[in-house]
Amino acid sequence: MAVRFARRMKTQGNSELAVILQVAAKPEIISFAGGLPALELFPVEEMKKVSTAVLDEAGGQALQYSSTEGYEPLRRQIAERMNRKFLTHVTYENILITSGSQQVLDFAGKLFLDEDDVVLCESPTYLAAISAFRSYMPRFIEVPTDNQGMKPEALEKILATEKKAKFIYVIPDFQNPSGFSWSLERRKQFMEIINRYEIPVVEDDPYGELRFEGENIPTLKSLDTKGLVLLAGTFSKTFCPGMRIGWVAASPELIAQLASIKQASDLHTSNMGQREVSKYIDMYDFDASVAKKNELYKHRRDVMLEALQKEMPQDVTFTHPQGGLFLWVTLPERINTVELLKKALKNNVAFVPGGAFFPNTKVENTMRLNYSSMTDEKIREGIHRLAEAIKNY
Amino acid sequence: MAVRFARRMKTQGNSELAVILQVAAKPEIISFAGGLPALELFPVEEMKKVSTAVLDEAGGQALQYSSTEGYEPLRRQIAERMNRKFLTHVTYENILITSGSQQVLDFAGKLFLDEDDVVLCESPTYLAAISAFRSYMPRFIEVPTDNQGMKPEALEKILATEKKAKFIYVIPDFQNPSGFSWSLERRKQFMEIINRYEIPVVEDDPYGELRFEGENIPTLKSLDTKGLVLLAGTFSKTFCPGMRIGWVAASPELIAQLASIKQASDLHTSNMGQREVSKYIDMYDFDASVAKKNELYKHRRDVMLEALQKEMPQDVTFTHPQGGLFLWVTLPERINTVELLKKALKNNVAFVPGGAFFPNTKVENTMRLNYSSMTDEKIREGIHRLAEAIKNY
Repeated sequence: MAVRFARRMKTQGNSELAVILQVAAKPEIISFAGGLPALELFPVEEMKKVSTAVLDEAGGQALQYSSTEGYEPLRRQIAERMNRKFLTHVTYENILITSGSQQVLDFAGKLFLDEDDVVLCESPTYLAAISAFRSYMPRFIEVPTDNQGMKPEALEKILATEKKAKFIYVIPDFQNPSGFSWSLERRKQFMEIINRYEIPVVEDDPYGELRFEGENIPTLKSLDTKGLVLLAGTFSKTFCPGMRIGWVAASPELIAQLASIKQASDLHTSNMGQREVSKYIDMYDFDASVAKKNELYKHRRDVMLEALQKEMPQDVTFTHPQGGLFLWVTLPERINTVELLKKALKNNVAFVPGGAFFPNTKVENTMRLNYSSMTDEKIREGIHRLAEAIKNY
Repeated sequence: MAVRFARRMKTQGNSELAVILQVAAKPEIISFAGGLPALELFPVEEMKKVSTAVLDEAGGQALQYSSTEGYEPLRRQIAERMNRKFLTHVTYENILITSGSQQVLDFAGKLFLDEDDVVLCESPTYLAAISAFRSYMPRFIEVPTDNQGMKPEALEKILATEKKAKFIYVIPDFQNPSGFSWSLERRKQFMEIINRYEIPVVEDDPYGELRFEGENIPTLKSLDTKGLVLLAGTFSKTFCPGMRIGWVAASPELIAQLASIKQASDLHTSNMGQREVSKYIDMYDFDASVAKKNELYKHRRDVMLEALQKEMPQDVTFTHPQGGLFLWVTLPERINTVELLKKALKNNVAFVPGGAFFPNTKVENTMRLNYSSMTDEKIREGIHRLAEAIKNY
């Protein structure tokens, strides 16, 4: 005998995210590869007061085991906020607190997927969602997607024939990696189809509140009349990611199933951490702090767009996101962005090659750029270095 | 079409742990069902200073995304502490931080188990481990166990014939639920066998530091010469559980695999939470705080033993644990403890029926009692109520 791993371990390979985080860590490199929120806006002084207030009020209870579904006042605050910002109609009973929204993706896989089942997703889609779902050995079908969202006819065609489709994974607001948002019309068409097929939808919405241009568009969850949508939310982008506090909003029936998964996976999310987020919302103006982030991100997006406009060769195109953290760049087809990254790293600049965002399709001439976590000077210098690498390719 | 769940969801049923936590929550009930550490010893005032110190020193970095393996200073502190307390020889590279040790159990399932693989465990074993592993659809084989640990001949016989055995799950220190610890001789025999078969071992050790009687016995990890043992550790019992900070200690090869699982599952454990535990260890005398807990738990165990001695009918037997949080009670065979629990709840006292701790075997006349979280008066009154329920059965 010798140590034998589960077959799923072969599906992961060298985690591309791990490589990203390694690259992002070297100080001499200007990295557009991560998705880090702007650290300078984290409420450091406020959190000192918040921690003290939580411990003053709750004492040892804040440090004890607590309920699997999460801290009830926080669940209520999230429901209230979702109804206001995402136009949903949920109560605290629709909310389960998770360790970031990444955990919602893992739980969706655990809840729905047997080996060889099918996940439908946008093309491209979020690479860490691909990793999360792969643990459960599904097949992926990429639904053709344009700058308005998934194409309804293509989706319908797949659902009509693919018997093993278990859920659809989408990021309708400021999609990661493309930066596009789905139009309202597409959202309505999508809901009409999924209601007809009664197929669950995991709506990943980390960036919904980070709109700095254009009008709010209702979430899929707000249009959900049959309890088919599981919305994955998080405080990582509106507040700070190091606390690892996210949530899933779903029907009470699904929440009960997800709670049994949560219990077996890690019992519950940090009690102290949940209380701190809740107390912060009580003590400070959350809306104002999000508005401040949006102001900064709009500025940084503009700086990056300007730099791209100025530096990039004419045959390089890029998206103009109205919110979120990412731009998507398309290069001439002769350029393979994995090869380009190797050259770019020698120029001390990093990005994520777009190929990682396609579970099946080979698309080699794209990249994702993050603009949220850097000074204007670094953005300009980084884009300059990147343009040099492209020109010398 | 309609919503269809993964087949694993059928294996969980009504989560027994959930029922426990519900029961434990009602204020009129004296509950011996939970496993709550003594809240009055949580370092509430100290944690205010700790949070402030972390934010003063690290600023926004404490609230930013961080590495999947965990906060390096904390990994170093854990390695140092394990080497001192558990007689291991590990470095920080052997340590991955998790959201409590429950998450290590989930990850062990994810790492090793395909459907129909076999987990070997003690009989009885920890019920939440059964739930964690069940997500991966294994079979369980209960290895015959006595008050010294797993019986080596029985283990050897199973390993010689069961080709699908993927790992062995054990709790050698103050076993949950029985309260027994494995003898050194048994540990050595066990390691000799697992080295021969090269089968991985998940050694769950939440209570190892909670010894208040007798001599320390080396952990299996300290006897591991082939990198086969994954030790699951936690701050839940030595510090406080609400932070959800645990770890796994294993070979660097296994840590790399577990890190890829961690990344796909929830990216990393709370950055702020990890820094707070690390800072607490820096600022305060951790050994002294554990000694204080042990003093209290020894006292409470004594109070419970005395009350059991005084109140219980002669044909009721119970273990005499030298550490940890639990006693194991065996009743006459005519008593079914699930039925007894229903009667006991009417007397406002609760416990966990022992049947939940056996994945296969039907054992209906046992129960687990927790003594760590209650005043002397409540322990005495609760045991009195329980004895009444037994006498009236």
